[in-house]
Amino acid sequence: MKAEILCVGTELLLGDIVNTNAAYIAKELANIGIDVYYQSVVGDNNDRLKESLELAFSRADIVVMTGGLGPTYDDLTKETVAEYFHKKMALDEESLKSITDFFDRLKRPMTENNKKQAMMPVGAKIFHNDNGTAPGLAISENDKTAVLLPGPPAEMRPMFRHAVIPYLMGFSDKVLVSHNIRVFGLGESRVEDMLYSLMKNSTNPTIAPYAKQGEVTLRVTAAADTKQKCEEMIAPVIKNIEDIVGKYIYGVDVANLQTAVVEELIRKNVTIATAESCTGGLISERITQIPGSSKVFGCGVCSYANDIKHCVLGVSEETLSQYGAVSEQTAKEMAQGVRRLAKSDIGVSTTGIAGPGGGTPEKPVGLVYIAIDSERFQKVIKLELNYHKADEREYVRHMTAQNVFKLVLSVLKENY
Amino acid sequence: MKAEILCVGTELLLGDIVNTNAAYIAKELANIGIDVYYQSVVGDNNDRLKESLELAFSRADIVVMTGGLGPTYDDLTKETVAEYFHKKMALDEESLKSITDFFDRLKRPMTENNKKQAMMPVGAKIFHNDNGTAPGLAISENDKTAVLLPGPPAEMRPMFRHAVIPYLMGFSDKVLVSHNIRVFGLGESRVEDMLYSLMKNSTNPTIAPYAKQGEVTLRVTAAADTKQKCEEMIAPVIKNIEDIVGKYIYGVDVANLQTAVVEELIRKNVTIATAESCTGGLISERITQIPGSSKVFGCGVCSYANDIKHCVLGVSEETLSQYGAVSEQTAKEMAQGVRRLAKSDIGVSTTGIAGPGGGTPEKPVGLVYIAIDSERFQKVIKLELNYHKADEREYVRHMTAQNVFKLVLSVLKENY
Repeated sequence: MKAEILCVGTELLLGDIVNTNAAYIAKELANIGIDVYYQSVVGDNNDRLKESLELAFSRADIVVMTGGLGPTYDDLTKETVAEYFHKKMALDEESLKSITDFFDRLKRPMTENNKKQAMMPVGAKIFHNDNGTAPGLAISENDKTAVLLPGPPAEMRPMFRHAVIPYLMGFSDKVLVSHNIRVFGLGESRVEDMLYSLMKNSTNPTIAPYAKQGEVTLRVTAAADTKQKCEEMIAPVIKNIEDIVGKYIYGVDVANLQTAVVEELIRKNVTIATAESCTGGLISERITQIPGSSKVFGCGVCSYANDIKHCVLGVSEETLSQYGAVSEQTAKEMAQGVRRLAKSDIGVSTTGIAGPGGGTPEKPVGLVYIAIDSERFQKVIKLELNYHKADEREYVRHMTAQNVFKLVLSVLKENY
Repeated sequence: MKAEILCVGTELLLGDIVNTNAAYIAKELANIGIDVYYQSVVGDNNDRLKESLELAFSRADIVVMTGGLGPTYDDLTKETVAEYFHKKMALDEESLKSITDFFDRLKRPMTENNKKQAMMPVGAKIFHNDNGTAPGLAISENDKTAVLLPGPPAEMRPMFRHAVIPYLMGFSDKVLVSHNIRVFGLGESRVEDMLYSLMKNSTNPTIAPYAKQGEVTLRVTAAADTKQKCEEMIAPVIKNIEDIVGKYIYGVDVANLQTAVVEELIRKNVTIATAESCTGGLISERITQIPGSSKVFGCGVCSYANDIKHCVLGVSEETLSQYGAVSEQTAKEMAQGVRRLAKSDIGVSTTGIAGPGGGTPEKPVGLVYIAIDSERFQKVIKLELNYHKADEREYVRHMTAQNVFKLVLSVLKENY
């Protein structure tokens, strides 16, 4: 089965946004055994879209399209595909209802042009959009299948995972099961090096690495007649991976590091408080992303100024003047201070030079101290996050938070 | 002048890496007045690459290609292009020297296959690679121009900026200028409704809307002989847009709301402190994303627990017991409290039900109070952020932060 990816949108064509959808879809299709030979991007233009669609179907069985499903006059994808398949457009009442509901819930008036999103080619399979107004759809006829998805990744990705994959799997008689192994603290090429022979020989289950923001996810996918058979095939593969990179794995099928941390805190009934300087609230923000985090988190202080480190967190003036704000001693006292302030079991802190300015030869950009304080365990770790790229500040802050979460997780596992 | 972008690489096709090159090149080409109508990705396969190249030249004058210039046997771009233009390949001594020098500098041995990178189609214009081994090149004949660039963005981008743009500017006779108008508080379809006649009739300058995370950007682009002429054409269009949606515009050519806020705070020398409950540190995190924010921001408190609202921020126990944590009164006292604690000019606060749990009929998920306190202006605003989607918690928190930033900005503009 051959597929092509055709992304529609002038904003892609002009380079205003990067086409992450194509990479996402390509990877997902590869995972279910569908080959992609071409990806294309075309603007919101009827003639060129039509031409691209015809070209794609001249080479492929499946064309997955993103974008151009919105309410405005230049959103043309559905109409062009309907024309290709000689289908009339008709109002889909169910889609209209969910669009109306969407606006009701937002308490915003629905403008007339939004109704356009409920117009569907007759006979299309419709994919409900849980995260926006434009439904997705598929039309399949004479061995040609077009899948149309909304452009925003936050709408497209869940729709692809939950509706499109099962739909495309319907063309085959197998069941597909995946598990995601989350790895932090090893680069992608290092992970690939260590797992090379395992990955190279993996066909079913497959092992696919995904790298993102200093983390690697290993997705293990099996295809078989039943879900249970898939699980039986996957279990020994996960075991093998754990044997090799086990100490870098922070969870299986867990969304991210902060989720792993908050779940472990709740499970063990341990409370935490945060004192942040260079991360500026990023750690508390990530903890409180997780529903239920209020059970284990009550207080975060973003002490950007020295004055606040002293007055609110109780870092001594001597420490600040003798060692400076970015020092092992300050990190330690910040963690102790916020723990005392919040009366929590654990206190964590960050202090460092996030850049781009503020670095010196002794304390360069990327130098960060993180600390943990609790009755059972205390530690300060020095990080040297050298990066030297345009987004260095974001990188330093992100990696600092990652390291704090990893530290908390290991302390929770070993000491609680 | 029409161009196409053709990116070569199996790793792109399989989605192992995201194609940031296409967006970068598209944007740069638009900037010098060259239109891009198609982007494509093809794997390292001779037949498909040849076919794609022929298709691209059937539609465009310029084809910009990335990837496939490396030393290995599956790097085929140069050879395929040479074939298309009926050119022989020959060793380019200068390229060979700079490749040899590159390895000398790295103190690594140069393997034999690296010489392949110095083989060039006869008559090609060669672009030196300052950041890697593969030189770029261009061939132009009979009104068709192929530009070949290395795949790694760190090599491609500087080469594009310093060598390719000057090369291509020779083909173009117009300049392009864009300005981005940032709008918050109106949905994309609402913006389009209000600006419909203005947008529909816009050809030069064009007006293009882009929606992202509750914001809309209107990009106004003009093409003319000189930059100054472009600016003169754009100015009245921006004025027209301001007349219609002016009160929702928070800036022109500013990266985002937090940047607009921090820049305005710095400009007016006003300090701010944050007291966050439902946003959990998101506001302080966004403020401290901006380099230089430490000039105007010293303290943020994430008071998730009532205890912390009382002990650290000084919200009275009566307020908490009589009105509850999610109330106008608590929001007000939080903003006052953090302003007092931080000795800042402005204090802002958030308290609300972010969901998914914790809602009641009286205080449903999405109910949020935000407050601002300063000597010159005090206000509490009630938000009802109904959404009911999988990412509701994220939405409520994000929109709360957006509303706080918008409030601070308007207070700064009117009262400082």
